[in-house]
Parts: sequence; C-alpha cells; structure tokens
Amino acid sequence: MQLLKDRIIKDGVCIGTEILKVDSFLNHQIDIQLLDQIGKTFYERFKGQNVTKLLTIEASGIAVACMTARYFRVPVVFAKKTEPSTMTGGFYHAEVRSFTKNKLSHVVISKEYLHTEDQILIIDDFLAHGEALGGLLNLSEQAGAAVRGAGIVIEKAFQGGGLKFRKQGLRIESLAVISSIQDGVIYFADSPL
Amino acid sequence: MQLLKDRIIKDGVCIGTEILKVDSFLNHQIDIQLLDQIGKTFYERFKGQNVTKLLTIEASGIAVACMTARYFRVPVVFAKKTEPSTMTGGFYHAEVRSFTKNKLSHVVISKEYLHTEDQILIIDDFLAHGEALGGLLNLSEQAGAAVRGAGIVIEKAFQGGGLKFRKQGLRIESLAVISSIQDGVIYFADSPL
Repeated sequence: MQLLKDRIIKDGVCIGTEILKVDSFLNHQIDIQLLDQIGKTFYERFKGQNVTKLLTIEASGIAVACMTARYFRVPVVFAKKTEPSTMTGGFYHAEVRSFTKNKLSHVVISKEYLHTEDQILIIDDFLAHGEALGGLLNLSEQAGAAVRGAGIVIEKAFQGGGLKFRKQGLRIESLAVISSIQDGVIYFADSPL
Repeated sequence: MQLLKDRIIKDGVCIGTEILKVDSFLNHQIDIQLLDQIGKTFYERFKGQNVTKLLTIEASGIAVACMTARYFRVPVVFAKKTEPSTMTGGFYHAEVRSFTKNKLSHVVISKEYLHTEDQILIIDDFLAHGEALGGLLNLSEQAGAAVRGAGIVIEKAFQGGGLKFRKQGLRIESLAVISSIQDGVIYFADSPL
C-alpha cells in the first residue's frame, strides 16, 4: 500500500535495527483518514471470506480494527491485557510477550464473544516476532472459531513472525512489509510475501 | 440518545449499585454501527467548536474517539497507561485511579502530539468519579491546549465526576446519563445535565 509506505518513510522513526516508531500516525496519534484507507484495503482483500468478526488486541489494534469493521459491518472483539474485575463468567486466556516493552502479558477474551460458528479476521497494527498473532490464534482455537486470515498494517519480516505463521497455512495480508532497517533507512520488501 | 439507552437496557449488566458492564457492545465487543451513531452525535453537538484534536485514554476510549474523528476529520491522540520504551523525548504525565479495576495508572502523552494551539475535545466511554477525565484535563493544561468540552458515552451521575467538572465550567455532553442503579434496574436522568 503505497500511501502507507510513503507515510512510514516520511514520519517513521527508526530505533536501532529492530524498532520502527510510528507514534505520529498509528500508535499514539492516529491519522483517521489513513486508517480509513487501511480499513478499506483490508476489506477489499478479505471481503469474500464471510468474516463474522474482527479480532484484535488492545490498545493500538483497536483503532485499526474499528476503521476496518466499518467496511465489513461486523463487530470488533479485542483481547484484554488484564482481567477486569467486571469480567464475570468464563474466558479464554493466552500469554503474549511484547519484545518492544519487554513484558509478558496475560490476555483474555470472554467466552461470550468468540464462538465455534465465528469466521475470524485478525487485525493488528504490527507483526514482528508473531507473539500477539500467536496469542490471538490460540484464543480463536480455544473457541473453535475459524480464522480466515490476518490483516497487518506493518510487518517487520526480518523478525520472522510472518514466515512462521504463513508456513502453518495462515493467510496474512500485510500492507507494508519491511525487510530490514539499517543505519536509519527502512527497506521494504519489493513484493507481497 | 435513545438508541444508546435502549441498548444499555437491553444488554447492560449491573453489578451491585456501582458498576454497569457493557462488554457486549462497548468495552470488549464493539458494535461499530452504534459507535458510528455515537460519533455522529458528538460531532453534531461540538461541530462549532473548532476542534483540532480528539483526546482519549486507552483502551476502550480509542474506539469511540476513532469513530468520532471520522466526522471531525481531525487526529486522535490517546494517553498511554505505561511509558513505552520506544517513547523518546519529553512527555506530560498524570496519575489516574480506576475504581473499577482498583488500580492507579501513570498515564503519559508525548509532548509532540499536544500543543498550545490545539483545541481539544476529550472523548471517553465512561464518566464515573471523573478520574480519567481529570487526568486528560491535567495533560491538556500542561500542554497549554484549550479544552472545548468532553463527549462521554455513559455518565454515572451518582458517582459525582460530571458534577465536579461542570462546576469548574467544563462543557460535558453525555449521551446516556444514569442517575442510579438499584436492584439491577438502571435509572436514567430524564434530561441532560
């Protein structure tokens, strides 16, 4: 998605060779017009998949999923990183490690909002080592829901998560795929993986 | 907003006299069509205020703010509850207590995304004791930004936050105002406060 790549080049900030910071339009301040185009693009790519629900994880994933759900006209469910005291009844849970934050999160989804008959599209802002994606797949599997694919805004291919889950047969559509970050320069993969 | 009140009556779950759980359409699973109507309503009420930015707090506030920002065509900035390792440079910070989660959060906003010339509309899912709203007002004040008002989805008037900040002159528009919860019955305030 050229609009997104242009924006990453213009406003992305590289920290070392591993981290790309896009706080100015995705992870702290959110450019709604850009997210609307991102949501529309995910819809175009997955619209034939009979998606019944978008699944994401708090916090930044929520914005992307909501702007995508407008096109699909289905609900968003987001996994929570803490178990709120108001969450009664059963829930599915998984462990998710954040490399950026160097933190292990316990994520949960209430059993009320993920069912065997659901056809899930996972939406997230980043795919790096694949920890969050693995957690969401795990939660979907526990619910017996079918995962139709994953829509990712930015994939850092060099961290291996995308390769790992594509090998397992998951369809992943990433709108910008970064092959490496070197000396502050972002290198995109030429073609979709 | 009748559509919202009807939905709260239909799907809200009361826990004691203090907590209203709306996980089925707002705080865990998100009904995007409803949020679109909520966003449109906030726009109608605040459209003359020259709003330059919507300010909210992760996580549930992000969904409401994004669906509102589509109408205003301005960016969303969300306060973060932890200080990410990728957040370099200066930031404003405030303490916010969550009564529901019984937890004190340190919330931050990068100085890059909140400025003296900003005209802020604060958006949040709930207004109860006013802790989150107080934190967002505090952050705006530190930035020297003007706060044009606050758009709240559900106000629990009996917990006093709305009264406190209206007395200080803040314009708060709450789309559903609950005066009390008794024996599992939700009582709405008849007219806007």
